[in-house]
Amino acid sequence: MKYEATARTRVKRIPKRGAYDRETIHSVLDEALICQVGFLVAGQPYVIPTGYARVGDDLYIHGSSASRMLRSLADGISVCVTVTLLDGLVLARSAFHHSMNYRSVVILGRAELVTKADEKARALEAFSDHVIPGRWADVRLPTEIEMKATTVLRIPITEASAKIRTGDPVDDDADYAIDVWAGVLPLALSVDAPIGDAKLTPGIGVPAYVAEYTRTKE
Amino acid sequence: MKYEATARTRVKRIPKRGAYDRETIHSVLDEALICQVGFLVAGQPYVIPTGYARVGDDLYIHGSSASRMLRSLADGISVCVTVTLLDGLVLARSAFHHSMNYRSVVILGRAELVTKADEKARALEAFSDHVIPGRWADVRLPTEIEMKATTVLRIPITEASAKIRTGDPVDDDADYAIDVWAGVLPLALSVDAPIGDAKLTPGIGVPAYVAEYTRTKE
Repeated sequence: MKYEATARTRVKRIPKRGAYDRETIHSVLDEALICQVGFLVAGQPYVIPTGYARVGDDLYIHGSSASRMLRSLADGISVCVTVTLLDGLVLARSAFHHSMNYRSVVILGRAELVTKADEKARALEAFSDHVIPGRWADVRLPTEIEMKATTVLRIPITEASAKIRTGDPVDDDADYAIDVWAGVLPLALSVDAPIGDAKLTPGIGVPAYVAEYTRTKE
Repeated sequence: MKYEATARTRVKRIPKRGAYDRETIHSVLDEALICQVGFLVAGQPYVIPTGYARVGDDLYIHGSSASRMLRSLADGISVCVTVTLLDGLVLARSAFHHSMNYRSVVILGRAELVTKADEKARALEAFSDHVIPGRWADVRLPTEIEMKATTVLRIPITEASAKIRTGDPVDDDADYAIDVWAGVLPLALSVDAPIGDAKLTPGIGVPAYVAEYTRTKE
């Protein structure tokens, strides 16, 4: 199943890096933690990092009801949501062919304000499950006042593409004779040991979903 | 020394997270590897990830002279460049107070095409030094044809702000009595063992600037 490539989402430079199938696009969206939301206010583009969650073919973002970004987007202006995973530095023999390995997704569309209580509640649970599966069952759930203070927007994923680079550097034929190391320096998001809140009640242990946290899905 | 906060860059939501001093803004720019470039084409905002380098109060981006993004930006349209470092997941006792620790920078301005050969050459070296210090001295430098195939844009950093969250979750007073683990799960960019190119000439060792690579500056 593919999202149809449009003139706006088709990868034109190095087309072999483009991907339009749901599986690839969803896997990038499900691994990353933050997206970059691009929108226009008074002629100026803004790009703001924020959390998100995917539910089927919808992307949800949320935040304070006082947020300028969310209020602007709720008016139905055009939006671009970009997610980027950086996988490595690609060291070629020539400066020119240096590159990075990455997986990125670009979604074009419009945001819609989520008004139904049940969809809003499901989206908030999806944010939690996206960031740290298992957490939702452990915490105090939102009150009615907190729900009102939170704006949730739905961005239907209809026009989207992925762009992916993997593997070795690609040098000019003549450059393979140059006596210099070439290859890939892999990069990833690492998780360090959890740090308990200074006000943590003594005797409360670290839950398994924190201790064993990882972003990469096997 | 500060960048003057404007109505467009002043952090309005949770103002204590805002920073405008050069040292803070430059340190975020110098640690991250990619930026997100936001711009408008035919009424649609786009957000595209790309590499960059900072030289003084200028940010440089570059790419193929055939790139739609660079050709659009070279026309002097408004641009937003955003850089984001994700430092941790913040686990509160209530769903509502979950957050992330992060450092982000937003730069608003216009791009200028770099036309002078010496500035272009310095910018290309700065890209290399930004991504992997030490590499430039080891590789085949750009030919005249490669220089022509590369577009470099300069974005003067004049209107910029940082937004930073650090430290523990902040819960509602009553929630500190809830019997659940709370704290921070630190996240960072990790570097794995370098992978030599399949066509690497036997006997060429991994240089120290690759073997000891790290993004965090002490």
